[in-house]
Amino acid sequence: MNGKVYLVGAGPGDPELLTVKALRLLRAADVVLYDDLVAPEILELASPTAELKNVGKRCGHKAIRQEEINFLLVTLAGSGRRVVRLKSGDPLIFGRAGEEIEALRRAGIEYEIIPGVTSALGAAAAAGIPLTHRQMSSTLVLTTGSSAPGKEDADWSQFAALRATLVVYMPGQNYDEIADKLSAARFSPETPCAIISRATTSEQRIYRTTISDLHKTPRLASPSLLVVGEVVRFADQNVVEEMATTSLLNHDLETGLALTLFSPAESSHQNEEPLA
Amino acid sequence: MNGKVYLVGAGPGDPELLTVKALRLLRAADVVLYDDLVAPEILELASPTAELKNVGKRCGHKAIRQEEINFLLVTLAGSGRRVVRLKSGDPLIFGRAGEEIEALRRAGIEYEIIPGVTSALGAAAAAGIPLTHRQMSSTLVLTTGSSAPGKEDADWSQFAALRATLVVYMPGQNYDEIADKLSAARFSPETPCAIISRATTSEQRIYRTTISDLHKTPRLASPSLLVVGEVVRFADQNVVEEMATTSLLNHDLETGLALTLFSPAESSHQNEEPLA
Repeated sequence: MNGKVYLVGAGPGDPELLTVKALRLLRAADVVLYDDLVAPEILELASPTAELKNVGKRCGHKAIRQEEINFLLVTLAGSGRRVVRLKSGDPLIFGRAGEEIEALRRAGIEYEIIPGVTSALGAAAAAGIPLTHRQMSSTLVLTTGSSAPGKEDADWSQFAALRATLVVYMPGQNYDEIADKLSAARFSPETPCAIISRATTSEQRIYRTTISDLHKTPRLASPSLLVVGEVVRFADQNVVEEMATTSLLNHDLETGLALTLFSPAESSHQNEEPLA
Repeated sequence: MNGKVYLVGAGPGDPELLTVKALRLLRAADVVLYDDLVAPEILELASPTAELKNVGKRCGHKAIRQEEINFLLVTLAGSGRRVVRLKSGDPLIFGRAGEEIEALRRAGIEYEIIPGVTSALGAAAAAGIPLTHRQMSSTLVLTTGSSAPGKEDADWSQFAALRATLVVYMPGQNYDEIADKLSAARFSPETPCAIISRATTSEQRIYRTTISDLHKTPRLASPSLLVVGEVVRFADQNVVEEMATTSLLNHDLETGLALTLFSPAESSHQNEEPLA
């Protein structure tokens, strides 16, 4: 029997945001090779007889090199197994699927790519932020805060001119540095931005601020995403926490309350006003 | 009973690329308001008792204005119904969900956004194109070929400098004009590009060319997407059709064969080489 590798997007976190196809393949897999960022609740959906292997590469863990993952994929499928290679979000965005696909092609291994809901879309849905807007932003730019070792970061200097919404994957915790990069790219300091941590999970937090106040943001748990652009103004008031504006902040400092905190994120949005 | 509106992404076309949550909500809906681009196979998954209404706005059909859709959403949910507003791809990318969300908030109607696999991800998965690549492209730009009436197109002049992969939604059939726009934006004429038509459906076609030869592309059925960038070189040879290169073309013209056509798109990729 010929094995096969399925490069599968696991979506942004909520197991219900798996695609129907991803769920079917997980249930039928012989082996699941998954990244650190894939939620445990999603791994529980795999066939009980499936072999599960963490091939994450995050700092702090024992490193597994990309070449080793490629070797595992080729060897396991070459011995006739149905292998699900499970990546958070979508496999073709910041997932290094390109390198795995090349290895599979070179080895003549059958493969199939199953797209997933990329994290930016999960985060935007959770925050109620339209990523494009007819009157405000007709372009969406997805980039990453951390790039390959030895490679330069993307040149951010062009982003501000695009009249676009910018989403930074893996922005890290150094918001000072990110704010500097955005300012150097000539984004206006008043540009609204949101940090969305663990979107679509029970630990979701959404924090709204501006580029000038970004450095005051509390540390939020990984994985997180940064959304920058005028569309962030539309974020749902009922799910975001935000730093009070400067004038409010001065007032609130006097009363001893520096932060205006809203209720924690709910997956459902309800306005205060009664039904008409 | 309070009604609610679910703004749901239907994914790129294949019904199996619905999320598990989208499928659950479709099956429980009282009313489904859907766009033209949503596949009939997906609508068949809705509850048999659900009322289905096409609110598409494509040219050639009787126009329904955005204000009317907003009114329907508010009225139907206001009368206690579970309304699924079904949009192809993801609701927050080029889906005008922003305007619908504003209307729902103003009216105090409960709503929830369910993200979906946006068309660019379905198309890239079908073509085997990694949208980002460690060595080649660390940024993905999603833009649209047609913009809101009265609004200018996004300024493409910055795109070429980004070292990014560019995906144009709704590129239309005027490939001459698109090629001119890309050239004016200083993309090199040799930049590879792919047009992906009806991705992830049985009518999928993937055509690979370069910007300089884009005008020779055959007309492909809507909906289609244009992917521009070096990563297009990685497209799966077994699923793409392509115009022969100029030198091949000259040779082939002599033998009466102008086009080198590969086998039609398959959702599964198989290399010719045997398993190791």
